[in-house]
Amino acid sequence: MKLSALSIRLENTKLEIIDQQMLPFEEKWIVVESPAHMIEIIKALKVRGAPLIGVAASASLAVWAIETKPSRSEFVKMAEELRQSRPTAVNLMNALDRVLSIVQEVEDFYQPVYEKACEIFKEDIELCESMSKAGASVINKGDRVLTHCNTGGLATAGRGTALGAISYAWEEGKEIEVYVDETRPLLQGGRLTVWELEKLKIPHTLICDNMAGFLMAQGKVDKVFVGTDRIALNGDFANKIGTYSVAVLAHYHKIPFYVVAPSTTVDGKCISGRDIPIEERKDFEVKGVEGSFGKTQWALDTKVYNPAFDVTPVDLVTGIVVDDVLYSQEDLKSGKLKAKFI
Amino acid sequence: MKLSALSIRLENTKLEIIDQQMLPFEEKWIVVESPAHMIEIIKALKVRGAPLIGVAASASLAVWAIETKPSRSEFVKMAEELRQSRPTAVNLMNALDRVLSIVQEVEDFYQPVYEKACEIFKEDIELCESMSKAGASVINKGDRVLTHCNTGGLATAGRGTALGAISYAWEEGKEIEVYVDETRPLLQGGRLTVWELEKLKIPHTLICDNMAGFLMAQGKVDKVFVGTDRIALNGDFANKIGTYSVAVLAHYHKIPFYVVAPSTTVDGKCISGRDIPIEERKDFEVKGVEGSFGKTQWALDTKVYNPAFDVTPVDLVTGIVVDDVLYSQEDLKSGKLKAKFI
Repeated sequence: MKLSALSIRLENTKLEIIDQQMLPFEEKWIVVESPAHMIEIIKALKVRGAPLIGVAASASLAVWAIETKPSRSEFVKMAEELRQSRPTAVNLMNALDRVLSIVQEVEDFYQPVYEKACEIFKEDIELCESMSKAGASVINKGDRVLTHCNTGGLATAGRGTALGAISYAWEEGKEIEVYVDETRPLLQGGRLTVWELEKLKIPHTLICDNMAGFLMAQGKVDKVFVGTDRIALNGDFANKIGTYSVAVLAHYHKIPFYVVAPSTTVDGKCISGRDIPIEERKDFEVKGVEGSFGKTQWALDTKVYNPAFDVTPVDLVTGIVVDDVLYSQEDLKSGKLKAKFI
Repeated sequence: MKLSALSIRLENTKLEIIDQQMLPFEEKWIVVESPAHMIEIIKALKVRGAPLIGVAASASLAVWAIETKPSRSEFVKMAEELRQSRPTAVNLMNALDRVLSIVQEVEDFYQPVYEKACEIFKEDIELCESMSKAGASVINKGDRVLTHCNTGGLATAGRGTALGAISYAWEEGKEIEVYVDETRPLLQGGRLTVWELEKLKIPHTLICDNMAGFLMAQGKVDKVFVGTDRIALNGDFANKIGTYSVAVLAHYHKIPFYVVAPSTTVDGKCISGRDIPIEERKDFEVKGVEGSFGKTQWALDTKVYNPAFDVTPVDLVTGIVVDDVLYSQEDLKSGKLKAKFI
């Protein structure tokens, strides 16, 4: 069996991922050698995007299980190590839990684990289609849509979450335009979203994050679409740093603000946004930039604050698409998400 | 006579400026050869900061007048060329108008023009002291102050505008902390404000622009202080791109938002913010970074939007300090600025 996507490929025990640190200038594929290698890859953000991390991590574990036949306790230990690689995105935890439940249930777990990983991969592709369709239902012809970070084929195994909804609307003939926040410090918008939109031939304009407000003030933004790394049961959600600022700006300008995610992003144990841990990353990222495009530092060595994510409360959300369902703020506040996922 | 500041020096006919593009890693001084050279310097942002541009431009014109004895019409033509070098900052226009009025009045205008330029230089130093004192009056002991762009000794001939108020409060013993927006695309916060705060030994933390909202949500920002490139008579003002977003965020979080400027930043012909022209700069700045620290591009060549400034309406302003007067939003809305400067 061969599973293939923009960002990841799995054929028998060969697992490959596109190195997102080499984009947009080089499309380099990396063969994943082991779960330990996958942890390195995730930490270096060569693989990123909450849904994709879940797919890739479980696939690396499954390939390793088939190839090395670890004991149950070795398997559980390795899964635990993978779980620590990124603390905010819950899809990783959800995918690992699903794989681990197999290990608890069956004696000869190698092939069943592999099949579960394939199921998670295929399911993500399908969920991307359904959530993109549901998200696209609120995008109108001619809309100018602002997005933050990267939420397309590079963030999932399918067409994406927020960017999936945008490409779905485009394919429906809606003639939209996209404003892309560059998304400092790691520039996922400038590097990756622009690369995807160029491939998709969807009209777009790149801006610095601090220009979004001025665009909105000029009436140039009709909708905001973002992805998420974790949704709490009350509708609060975590996403790439800067998302909260965009949500406040959209709220002030009365611009609808939508979140798109697969159900694997909902954390059934998380009551509100206050329960979501926020990863802080190394200082250098704020003092300069580093990537396949080069490395440069423009600020003196000084104290920095570098949270990788922020939390946006449900009050700032117009709606959250989960799989094929669009939950309005009212739905979220009346506990519909909680009722389904607790 | 010798006039000397952090960013500019004038001794007889020798005019020097510190090359702000070489900061923070090298302190290189440039001898200004002519007004044409000054135009290059301003366009390359080697000199920047609305008040400093006014001081530096008029000084370059005065030195040139003394040295080359141009005709009145040659002088007026050169002043016109300087006026075009940066369209948003009104201090430049105000300083040139003051120098030009001498040329209209007296026959042998060379020495009087030089004296006027020196007066503008010294006046800026004094205005910095008075506006910093007035601004500091609303900073409390222990305040955590967020600032955007650079508004200190590198933006003026004195101690600065917003950053002047911050350093004044610090010298009064108020034990404040400063959050510094890096200020994409040209990184005046990351490069220049951090450099100044290090020199001043004031505690500070560098952040990416998109982190300001999350800091505010966590209750970590007590006040926002910014400078301005042009104040309209109704209290609307232009400042570095991203200021408007910060103002909306401060408003949402009920955080006082102050603007500090000398009277040379008020445009007596400008009724509201809608009358302020916004300079757009070249695409490359958004697709990467370039400076003495290196050059790198991370985004594909694609369409960008790159306004250098934005306009913040008076509704988002808690107060504007002009020279030694703090105008509250109510003062501004009741026309007190208009009454004084029209």
